[in-house]
Amino acid sequence: MAPRIAGVSLTDFGKHPERSSRELFTEAAGGALADAGVQADDVGVVYVGNFAGDLTEDQGHFGPMMADYMGARDVAATRVENACASGGVAVRQAVEAVASGMHEVAVAGGVEMMHNVGIADITDALANAGDNEYENEVGLTFPGIYALMARRYLHEFDAEHEHLAAVTVKNRENALDNPIAQFREPVTVAEALEGRPIASPLTLYDACPITDGAAAVVVTSEEFADEHGLDAPVRVAGTGQSSDTIALQDRPELARTRAAERAADEAYEYAGVGPGDVDVAEVHDCFTIAEVLAVESLGFFERGEGYRGAAEGETTVDGSIPVNTSGGLIAKGHPVGATGAAQVAELTKQLEGRHANQVADSTVGVAHNVGGSGASAVVTVLRSA
Amino acid sequence: MAPRIAGVSLTDFGKHPERSSRELFTEAAGGALADAGVQADDVGVVYVGNFAGDLTEDQGHFGPMMADYMGARDVAATRVENACASGGVAVRQAVEAVASGMHEVAVAGGVEMMHNVGIADITDALANAGDNEYENEVGLTFPGIYALMARRYLHEFDAEHEHLAAVTVKNRENALDNPIAQFREPVTVAEALEGRPIASPLTLYDACPITDGAAAVVVTSEEFADEHGLDAPVRVAGTGQSSDTIALQDRPELARTRAAERAADEAYEYAGVGPGDVDVAEVHDCFTIAEVLAVESLGFFERGEGYRGAAEGETTVDGSIPVNTSGGLIAKGHPVGATGAAQVAELTKQLEGRHANQVADSTVGVAHNVGGSGASAVVTVLRSA
Repeated sequence: MAPRIAGVSLTDFGKHPERSSRELFTEAAGGALADAGVQADDVGVVYVGNFAGDLTEDQGHFGPMMADYMGARDVAATRVENACASGGVAVRQAVEAVASGMHEVAVAGGVEMMHNVGIADITDALANAGDNEYENEVGLTFPGIYALMARRYLHEFDAEHEHLAAVTVKNRENALDNPIAQFREPVTVAEALEGRPIASPLTLYDACPITDGAAAVVVTSEEFADEHGLDAPVRVAGTGQSSDTIALQDRPELARTRAAERAADEAYEYAGVGPGDVDVAEVHDCFTIAEVLAVESLGFFERGEGYRGAAEGETTVDGSIPVNTSGGLIAKGHPVGATGAAQVAELTKQLEGRHANQVADSTVGVAHNVGGSGASAVVTVLRSA
Repeated sequence: MAPRIAGVSLTDFGKHPERSSRELFTEAAGGALADAGVQADDVGVVYVGNFAGDLTEDQGHFGPMMADYMGARDVAATRVENACASGGVAVRQAVEAVASGMHEVAVAGGVEMMHNVGIADITDALANAGDNEYENEVGLTFPGIYALMARRYLHEFDAEHEHLAAVTVKNRENALDNPIAQFREPVTVAEALEGRPIASPLTLYDACPITDGAAAVVVTSEEFADEHGLDAPVRVAGTGQSSDTIALQDRPELARTRAAERAADEAYEYAGVGPGDVDVAEVHDCFTIAEVLAVESLGFFERGEGYRGAAEGETTVDGSIPVNTSGGLIAKGHPVGATGAAQVAELTKQLEGRHANQVADSTVGVAHNVGGSGASAVVTVLRSA
């Protein structure tokens, strides 16, 4: 009954001012269909994650546009938007569409063009993921929001900025062999700590870059995969989604992402697994502190202990629970609407044993995709058959 | 098995510069829950239709924000965007979430704030529903797009502008007793024809107004409705969604909306009914020509005959197939992301016998919601038990 991930594809992540979102998305969707060995004619529904197309390209209505350009003009096609979790929610919608029996083949993906406006404009656009009335309007954009979360975490627990910097060092290291990653150069803890300050205590190295890119996955029913002889050993064993207040100030604890905890609980229960069963994870490290909160939300570490993950080598590719073997958002890049689908694509490659930064003997993978400061969260559990 | 529409609510449609989308949506969602007799705690998933919040309010990420403000903070909450069909797609997603057994109670709705930016800016924002590269960039915004469709229709078939004006006259008449309608004054055919030209042959009276407003519906499973003794006689008998090219120029016929035809076929088949079984319809009359194309797409009239509907009295409230008894987009107003949910709300009132402009003996209702120039279309068939 569990839907299969039959094919995946990612475009190059980076700066693509000469391209458009329809071009990038079509490349990813076409690549995923080719990877799956599925024809566009077989697609029944398309979900596209995109956050800021209205602001960066004067373009909304991505659903039918992308369906048409990928060769599936006549199908139901919808854009979903949960800020930086849009891609993960697109995958979840596709999984539900297939799991429910309503469709046999779904394409889910996402795309974001971010370099065709200036840095001030894209920072402003991203701020729309927060609470405009209580955050953006008073000047609180995302570097500041995550700096507040980091400052509170460092105050509350026995962690230092060095522990956060270790996340960047690990993720840069992981991206060295990822052909689509935006940053493929190592950094040291000292370099990361001495980076240009963006919002104290965070430096530029604590933040993910601005990225153009797209990713897509093909989700099919088990029956379709079997009937068509698809090589699709990875199945979606569980999915969970939850919400929290959009404004950080409305939450009882700043250094905690409860929506992600609930989404993880739901996904684990659905899949019949626990944190100890997970072999590899892709988590939403838009800032270093976000990865620390993520590994706690996913239950890999107790509350207040997640900062040990990268610093003590437990989340490296040969550690006890490898996290962001793709390089994560920090090194691979973060094309907002695409990120959640990119995580599922990277994990699928891991579970199929064809990842550039392969984890040995991995059968259970978890993707953790967050929107805003944690107002949206979606968690997906994958398992190789 | 068919999900029930347990409660509905609409805010006042018009100019609300002193309010915000969260306030309007919360009013609609709270109203729908109260109408249903369902607590916010019972809600399992929320779908919010919104098109241009990023441009009009510097606000995206409507899913969790609206879930929180309506009192359902912990649930999966997602914004869906299919341009002017966003609200109808939100309802469809809620119906699928309940029909699949994944959730017992879903809230679907939509909201749009359109008066807090100027008329040039909102026209520009709406143009994002078209193809930016091939339409918007060369100055083709929606009045021009629908004027092209109207001009082609009048050229191809035996229709005159008077036939289009009859749609406005009917819909203005229908709105006279609708307490939430934006325009509650009658117009004559002569007045409509003499209106200010906006894009030849269309005058201002051929177009719907710019509207602030919200609408929401509560969708529950049959079991939930029965167990909780809800007074919910209306069920969703069928739903269909399809797509077309985003650019008008890429279609073989300009005066035809094929995505709507496909969505209607799918919804009718799902419901086991045909056009002849329909007692009342709410259709997407963003411009007069759009209602003419809609009644053809829904199979109420043959191709090239839809213009007779309003002009010959067949689509009036006491005609053979009453269309837009609420006043439609032209008189009730068109808060873009809310419109599809508003249609379902109005139809539910008709099928429950509590509409201000009641059609006698109506048991089957159809909602037809279109995005852009027809690139997205969603059709919903309702039936009273």
